[in-house]
Amino acid sequence: MSAESHCDVAVIGAGFAGLRTALRLREAGLLVRVLEARDRVGGRSAAATLNGRTIDVGGQWVGVGHERLRALAESCDTSLVPQYTAGSKLLELGGRMRRYDGLIPPASVTALVEMQSALWRLRALQRRVPPDAPWDAHGADALDRLSVDAWQARWLRSRGARALFDIGVRAVFCGTPRQLSMLGFLHYLRANRDFDALLSTTDGAQAWTVDGGMHALAVRMGAALGDALQLDTPVRQIEQQADSVVVHTPRGALRASRVVVAMAPPAAGRIDYAVTLPAREQLAQRMPMGSVIKVLVAYAKPFWRANGLSGEFVGDAAAFSPVFDASPADASHGALIGFFDGPEAVHWSGDAQARRREVIATLVRAFGPEAAEPLDYAEKDWIADPWSRGCYTGLWTPGTLTEVGSALRAPCGRVHWAGTETATEWCGYIEGALASGDRVADELRHAMAS
Amino acid sequence: MSAESHCDVAVIGAGFAGLRTALRLREAGLLVRVLEARDRVGGRSAAATLNGRTIDVGGQWVGVGHERLRALAESCDTSLVPQYTAGSKLLELGGRMRRYDGLIPPASVTALVEMQSALWRLRALQRRVPPDAPWDAHGADALDRLSVDAWQARWLRSRGARALFDIGVRAVFCGTPRQLSMLGFLHYLRANRDFDALLSTTDGAQAWTVDGGMHALAVRMGAALGDALQLDTPVRQIEQQADSVVVHTPRGALRASRVVVAMAPPAAGRIDYAVTLPAREQLAQRMPMGSVIKVLVAYAKPFWRANGLSGEFVGDAAAFSPVFDASPADASHGALIGFFDGPEAVHWSGDAQARRREVIATLVRAFGPEAAEPLDYAEKDWIADPWSRGCYTGLWTPGTLTEVGSALRAPCGRVHWAGTETATEWCGYIEGALASGDRVADELRHAMAS
Repeated sequence: MSAESHCDVAVIGAGFAGLRTALRLREAGLLVRVLEARDRVGGRSAAATLNGRTIDVGGQWVGVGHERLRALAESCDTSLVPQYTAGSKLLELGGRMRRYDGLIPPASVTALVEMQSALWRLRALQRRVPPDAPWDAHGADALDRLSVDAWQARWLRSRGARALFDIGVRAVFCGTPRQLSMLGFLHYLRANRDFDALLSTTDGAQAWTVDGGMHALAVRMGAALGDALQLDTPVRQIEQQADSVVVHTPRGALRASRVVVAMAPPAAGRIDYAVTLPAREQLAQRMPMGSVIKVLVAYAKPFWRANGLSGEFVGDAAAFSPVFDASPADASHGALIGFFDGPEAVHWSGDAQARRREVIATLVRAFGPEAAEPLDYAEKDWIADPWSRGCYTGLWTPGTLTEVGSALRAPCGRVHWAGTETATEWCGYIEGALASGDRVADELRHAMAS
Repeated sequence: MSAESHCDVAVIGAGFAGLRTALRLREAGLLVRVLEARDRVGGRSAAATLNGRTIDVGGQWVGVGHERLRALAESCDTSLVPQYTAGSKLLELGGRMRRYDGLIPPASVTALVEMQSALWRLRALQRRVPPDAPWDAHGADALDRLSVDAWQARWLRSRGARALFDIGVRAVFCGTPRQLSMLGFLHYLRANRDFDALLSTTDGAQAWTVDGGMHALAVRMGAALGDALQLDTPVRQIEQQADSVVVHTPRGALRASRVVVAMAPPAAGRIDYAVTLPAREQLAQRMPMGSVIKVLVAYAKPFWRANGLSGEFVGDAAAFSPVFDASPADASHGALIGFFDGPEAVHWSGDAQARRREVIATLVRAFGPEAAEPLDYAEKDWIADPWSRGCYTGLWTPGTLTEVGSALRAPCGRVHWAGTETATEWCGYIEGALASGDRVADELRHAMAS
């Protein structure tokens, strides 16, 4: 890329959204270049090694209905492995650890009734929210003024129901209910079927993992792009001219007919657009990333299974929660995966040794003394990742969707937008990233044909 | 700054906070360097020319109690000019333009009673909030969950009172009530005496302007620093080592014993800290800047005065509101100053010609047909300013103060923080910026003596 090079479409970001966009456009006969700031593809999906096996320290799950992702895995001859769920789950509420089976957590009857009616109410409310234009929902303005916390305070009265709801919000958004707009929350629920589905393994968003790792699929997509993909190339400026766009990087400039920015809104906002894009700028500033640290711990065997436990644990006061079984399909060793979410991630982000002690202490509390002797340990602090600065997604804060939400996908001249946040279905998931790539590729084919 | 240069303290940002910090530290005998990204000093204060006269297109007012700023003006032999307020004010509510005198706007009795009791209630509430640690307020958690919008919906029932309150919030914060945490709001009110004072001219925060312009004071401070001040030098990275800090810029590296970042939190968040500062990162992401475009319009004479008007105008549905008289002290010509605030600023940020038409149409509606013939026009779109990306200040969104607020001033190793947002008194104003400079200079003298 010395001097200035040329292409039809420059795609910024080689996460699943950018990779998909580029492959689709190349199929359509366009000359595409993908510029990626990191030294790897995959964006918010990333790989590490645990006890000699490649594992995902980023996005890892395939959910029910994630058809694009399922087809992608198939096309890579990769099989999906059902999330292990056999056995009892653990729930720590108000300082008490309890085992339970099935779908109904061991909370008070009041809490369960309240929680169930809240889920019903949410399902009714989310129907109001048009997936492609939540700002046009009936009562959008009132819903966007309301935080999820305020809604919850009104409809959940018992401590148990509030605790369960909080656990759910924290796990899904890696943020707190008071940060979130009720309209944004409903938009997210609808795009992912409903709150129940978001929280579920087998029948929901965490149904399968990818044999060999999710990240390997991104690597395959990147390999298919060959020389069209350039790593270690952060984009500093996107400058629109009358009939083209110039993308400036420390490694030279690239001129394209159009550009796709396939990044989370706050990350996209760190690029200089030469002429400010006012609504996009506010979107970048008012859509903070969630906070999460993902941790995997390996054991000689999945000892919890012998005790009748599935490996699933959540707690209302646990910093390290939720936890799931992440053992390889052949159970040749055991592994647990868990998360520090939201404020807990911010709190535990500094000191890696203290964090590890907290992880092990939590696992011992939940699964017994055998958890004290791990074989290996791997983690990824997404707050500290300089290109993501948080995960899983940018969060809809109150007022943002109705004030500047329509800037999410609306092209700004020759600059188009992709990324899981822009998806009308499965947003927040890799499936949404792929869907956004399909959508923006269509958008560009249209724009470039005219 | 070729190769690596050295100093005791590197100050990043030459707004009033950074300039004050540097001058104070130099008085204490330390070798200081100030690095500024822009080609000028002053930060969120800036100058332009209107009808041949230097005017402020950024921060301009001196308020009652702004003693540091008053002393600074005096030390520069600069006088303060009282904000012109003689005559009637204009209020446009529900499509009707009304004149009124004195402090009480022409709203319904219900609206006035509600508004008055809301102001009383706010005064009582703000007393709970310790200026230096709002997160320790009695009931901080509940107040930080609540948006200003939710509070307002509870205490203001009449349309008139809500409209008046909204006008006030928009004018002070350049954002919407649903964006703001009630705890953050109370913190801001307390730091600036109360809501009334924030909205007032003569007895409040907009009492005087600076003869020759506020920005000239920053220029004087910058000149006093001489070679210690370096413009056009954006800081890209701050790298802490065992016993010093290296500040990286496109013009070379600077090694210092300690660093002061004197910038608004979101701008400070665009610097790479080599090792992520988790709470600061969340603060940067969750404290969006307000949105504002400031406009000045010159006329042959201050014709509204002859009609018995003060030049002050606000409207509940006007995009361009509030408006004030900004004529020079000798009234040699007339000038009005006004603002597009919050969502209106985002909406009108794109098209300069349409914006100008909207300004003139509003002024004609308020002040009559003479407003249609301006002599000159000057403006500053602070959203489009690449180093500020908004004004006046970073906003406290729900949850931010209690979750990560204490990161606002807490030094991170050898990196210290200044800027008006960090001030415990007069935050949001230039007085707060100066106060933050005094505070951080003390902090550093302590740290470097030990």
